[in-house]
Amino acid sequence: MPADLCPADAALAARLPQGVLRDPAPAYLEEPRGRWLGQAGLIAAPRDTAECAAIIRACAEARVPVVPRGGGTGLVGGQVMSQGPAPLVLSLERMTAIRSIHPDEGVMIAESGVTLHAAREAAARVGRQFPLSLASQGSAQIGGVLATNAGGVNVLRYGNARALCLGIEAVLPSGEVMHDLKRLRKDNTGYDLRDLLIGAEGTLGIITAASLVLAPVPAETGVALLVVDGPEAALTLLSLAQARMAGGVTAFEMIAGQGLRFLAEAFPEMRQPFPAPPDWSVLIEVGLPDGLSAQAALEGLFAAGVEAGLASDGVIAQSGREAAELWALREHIPLANRHVGAIANHDISLPLSEIARFIADAGAMIAAEGDMRINCFGHLGDGNLHYNFFPAPGRTREDYDQYRKPMTRRIHEMVVARGGSFSAEHGVGRLKAADLAEWGDPARLAAMRAIKAALDPVGIMNPGVILA
Amino acid sequence: MPADLCPADAALAARLPQGVLRDPAPAYLEEPRGRWLGQAGLIAAPRDTAECAAIIRACAEARVPVVPRGGGTGLVGGQVMSQGPAPLVLSLERMTAIRSIHPDEGVMIAESGVTLHAAREAAARVGRQFPLSLASQGSAQIGGVLATNAGGVNVLRYGNARALCLGIEAVLPSGEVMHDLKRLRKDNTGYDLRDLLIGAEGTLGIITAASLVLAPVPAETGVALLVVDGPEAALTLLSLAQARMAGGVTAFEMIAGQGLRFLAEAFPEMRQPFPAPPDWSVLIEVGLPDGLSAQAALEGLFAAGVEAGLASDGVIAQSGREAAELWALREHIPLANRHVGAIANHDISLPLSEIARFIADAGAMIAAEGDMRINCFGHLGDGNLHYNFFPAPGRTREDYDQYRKPMTRRIHEMVVARGGSFSAEHGVGRLKAADLAEWGDPARLAAMRAIKAALDPVGIMNPGVILA
Repeated sequence: MPADLCPADAALAARLPQGVLRDPAPAYLEEPRGRWLGQAGLIAAPRDTAECAAIIRACAEARVPVVPRGGGTGLVGGQVMSQGPAPLVLSLERMTAIRSIHPDEGVMIAESGVTLHAAREAAARVGRQFPLSLASQGSAQIGGVLATNAGGVNVLRYGNARALCLGIEAVLPSGEVMHDLKRLRKDNTGYDLRDLLIGAEGTLGIITAASLVLAPVPAETGVALLVVDGPEAALTLLSLAQARMAGGVTAFEMIAGQGLRFLAEAFPEMRQPFPAPPDWSVLIEVGLPDGLSAQAALEGLFAAGVEAGLASDGVIAQSGREAAELWALREHIPLANRHVGAIANHDISLPLSEIARFIADAGAMIAAEGDMRINCFGHLGDGNLHYNFFPAPGRTREDYDQYRKPMTRRIHEMVVARGGSFSAEHGVGRLKAADLAEWGDPARLAAMRAIKAALDPVGIMNPGVILA
Repeated sequence: MPADLCPADAALAARLPQGVLRDPAPAYLEEPRGRWLGQAGLIAAPRDTAECAAIIRACAEARVPVVPRGGGTGLVGGQVMSQGPAPLVLSLERMTAIRSIHPDEGVMIAESGVTLHAAREAAARVGRQFPLSLASQGSAQIGGVLATNAGGVNVLRYGNARALCLGIEAVLPSGEVMHDLKRLRKDNTGYDLRDLLIGAEGTLGIITAASLVLAPVPAETGVALLVVDGPEAALTLLSLAQARMAGGVTAFEMIAGQGLRFLAEAFPEMRQPFPAPPDWSVLIEVGLPDGLSAQAALEGLFAAGVEAGLASDGVIAQSGREAAELWALREHIPLANRHVGAIANHDISLPLSEIARFIADAGAMIAAEGDMRINCFGHLGDGNLHYNFFPAPGRTREDYDQYRKPMTRRIHEMVVARGGSFSAEHGVGRLKAADLAEWGDPARLAAMRAIKAALDPVGIMNPGVILA
C-alpha cells in the first residue's frame, strides 16, 4: 500500500460535488462474512458519471484512497478497507438507470448500480435473458459483478461476467472518463482495456456503466438431478451431455451427500428427492431448440448414462415448479453451510481431468488431519469447486482454529500443483492478496504492478486489493 | 515511434542463440496486399520459448525493434515495418508443437507457430472442434490469430479468438516469460493480461503458446442460402433463427448481388444456386442437438421466414457436398473481389440495428460521388461488414485514385457516428494507427499509451503498430 495516502476528511468533503455525501451507515463498512470492518471515512454516492469523475479527481488531488462499493456481496474483502488512512467509500447505489435496451441486437446498457436481479428482469421484459446468475443477485450490482468478473451457475454455457460485456464506461484513476460503451460484437481497435478493468476489483478505475449481452431464451428448458458414481463419472456424463445437446447444457452442478445432509439439518422442511442422500449427484439444466422436448432429451441422457454405468438414479423435473424445487436444493446448500459453520471455505478451480484425483487426495489429507466433514460442491462443468470443511458433529469451528490456516495452505498447494486456481470466481480482494503474491507467476505479477503504477500512480484505487 | 532505436546488425546477430537466424527471404518482408515492403534486418526463428526470450532480451539490450511474424496473412501491415531502423523479424514458424490435447476437458495447448488449419485438424482427430475459422487458415498461425484477435465465420456462436483462449505463455518486452497456460474456465487471480496481450498485435509481447478451447461437435449441422428482402429482413430472420435454434446458429453471412456477379465474372465455372443473383441473401449454418434434423429445422425456419415476409427463396443443402458448395460461394467472394480489384476495402462493424440504415446511407453517398460498384458482405450476425467498392465495368482502380482516401474517411465517419468500429476483425496494425489516434476515445488512448510505456519502456515491440 502506498505510504503517503491521506485520510478522507472534511477538507475533501468540501470539495466534492453537492449532495453526494451519505451518512456513514454501518452497511457501507461491512462484508458478508464479518471478517473485516471498514473504517468510517466519507461515503459518497454519485448520481451520474460526471459526479463520479469529480469525486475521483478530488480524491486523486487529495491522495485519499477510494473504495468502490456495489452491492457489497463480495467474499474476499474487496469492499472494505480496514487498515491505512480512512478511505472514501464510493457507492454506485444511485446510478441505477438502464440507459437503453436493444432486444434485436441482444444488448442492454446498464449503469453500475443496477442490481443483477434488476438487469435480469429488464432483459426478461423484452423477451431476452441476461444469463449471469448467482446466489446474491438480489443485492449484487452490475459494477461489482464486472469488477470481480463474477461467475455463477450459467458460466458453462454463457461464460462469466467478462464474456457477457461488450463495452464499458469507466472513470480512470486520473478522473478521466473512458467512453467505450460499444454495442459491437467485434471491435479490434487497440488494447482490451474493457477486460483489463473487468476483474481488476476496482483497483484500476470505476466501471460506471456497461454494455451487456442479452441472449435468446431457449425454446425448451429442462432440469434433472442425476445420481452419479462419483466426480469422474459426473464429468464423463457431462461430455456425453455436451455431445448430445450441441453445447446446450446451461448448468452442471455437483452436489455431495454431505451437502444434502447439511440441508436436511438446516432446512428439515425441504423435500429431498432421494430417500437417502446419494454420495454424489449432479443438477443438470439444458436449454434446447424448438422442436425438441427437453424432458425427452434429459430422459435420453439419463438412459445413456445408466447404460454407460455413469448414473444410477435420477429425477427429471416434470414442470417449472419441480425444476425450481431442484434448483432450490442447490441454492440452499451455501445457506446450510453457513448454518453448520465452516472451518474454512475454498473457491478453487482445476483442469477437469484433475478434479477426481484432487477430491480423493484432498479428502485423504483432511481425514488424516482430524475429524472433519467435507462439503465439496459447485460448478463442476467449469472445474470450479467450493471445497469447504466443517467440524465433526457436536464440535464447533473454534475447536479447529489451529487447522484453518495450515489446511487452507495445503489445499491451495494441492490446487496450484495441479494447474488450478486458488480463486476461481470470487476474486483476490484483500483476503487472497498474499496468496497471489506467493503463487502468482513472477513475470505476470511484475506486469500487473507495472500496469497498476502506470494507470494509478498515486495508488488511490482500492489499495491493498489484488496487489498488496 | 521511439527515436533512439537501432537497426538489427551483425553485433546483435552474434548475441542471438545459435542457429536461430534465417535467410532474409522476401516472404518474411511481405504482406498480402503488397502495400508495404519490410526492411531486411535480421530474421530469427526460435525453436522454443527460451530461445524466443533470449532473442527479445538481446533486442531489448541492443534497442532493436522486433516485428513478430506468424503466417503473415494480416491485412493491416502489422507484420511489416518499412520505416525506421531495420528490425529483427521474429518468426514463430518453428514453434509448431501441439504440447498436449485434452478432449474431455475441451482444451488444447498449442504453440504459436501451429497453423489454424493444423489446430483445427488436431481437434478433429480427437472428436472435438476448434471453432475459429477464416479464409487464411492454411497459413495463419495461432500466435497471429491471437495477437490480432481474429474473427471469421463462427464468431456468432463461438466468439472471436479471444473467447477461445483460456491462457497464454508469452515473452514480455523485458524478455521475461509469463507462464499462464491454464486449462481453467474460471480463474480470477488478478489482471487479465491474457486478454491484454490478445489483440495487442505484438506490441506488448510475443505469445509463444496458448491454451485453446475445444468445443463439442454438434450432432446435427445444416447449411442454407436464403434470399432475403434486404439487410433489415436478414437481421429479423437472424432473431427468429436464434429464438428457434436456442443460439445454435453458427454462421450468418450476408451476400450481396454484386458479390455473386463478381463471382460469375471471376469464377464462371462455379454453379450458382439462383438463376439471377438476388440482391441480398444470407448463408446460414446451424449446429443442433441429437434428435433434431438440421435440414428440417432449416426448412421450418425458411417457412417461418416466408410467412413473416422476410425470405422469398432459398436452397437448403441436402448433403455435406451441397453444404460445402454453398460455403464455397461465400468463401470465393474475397477472391472474386481481388480479381475485380477494389478501390477501397473496409472492415467495419456496427450495432445491428444501425446496419440497414448505414448500408442505405453509404450507398447513397457513394452513388453521389461517382460511378462505382459496391460489394457489401460479411459476418452480418456479428454486425461486421466488409464494405468494399470497385470501379465501374471497363474502368480501373487507378481511375479512382482520388476517391480512395476521402471516401474511406467518410465511410469511417459514418461508422463512428453510428457507434461502430473502423476495424472490426482485422486490427489496427500500421494501416489504421492514424485512424485510431484520430477516432479513439482520448482517455482510452491515454491509458493504452501508459500501458505500452509501462510494459515496453524501450519501445522495441512492433513499433508503429496500434500506437503510431
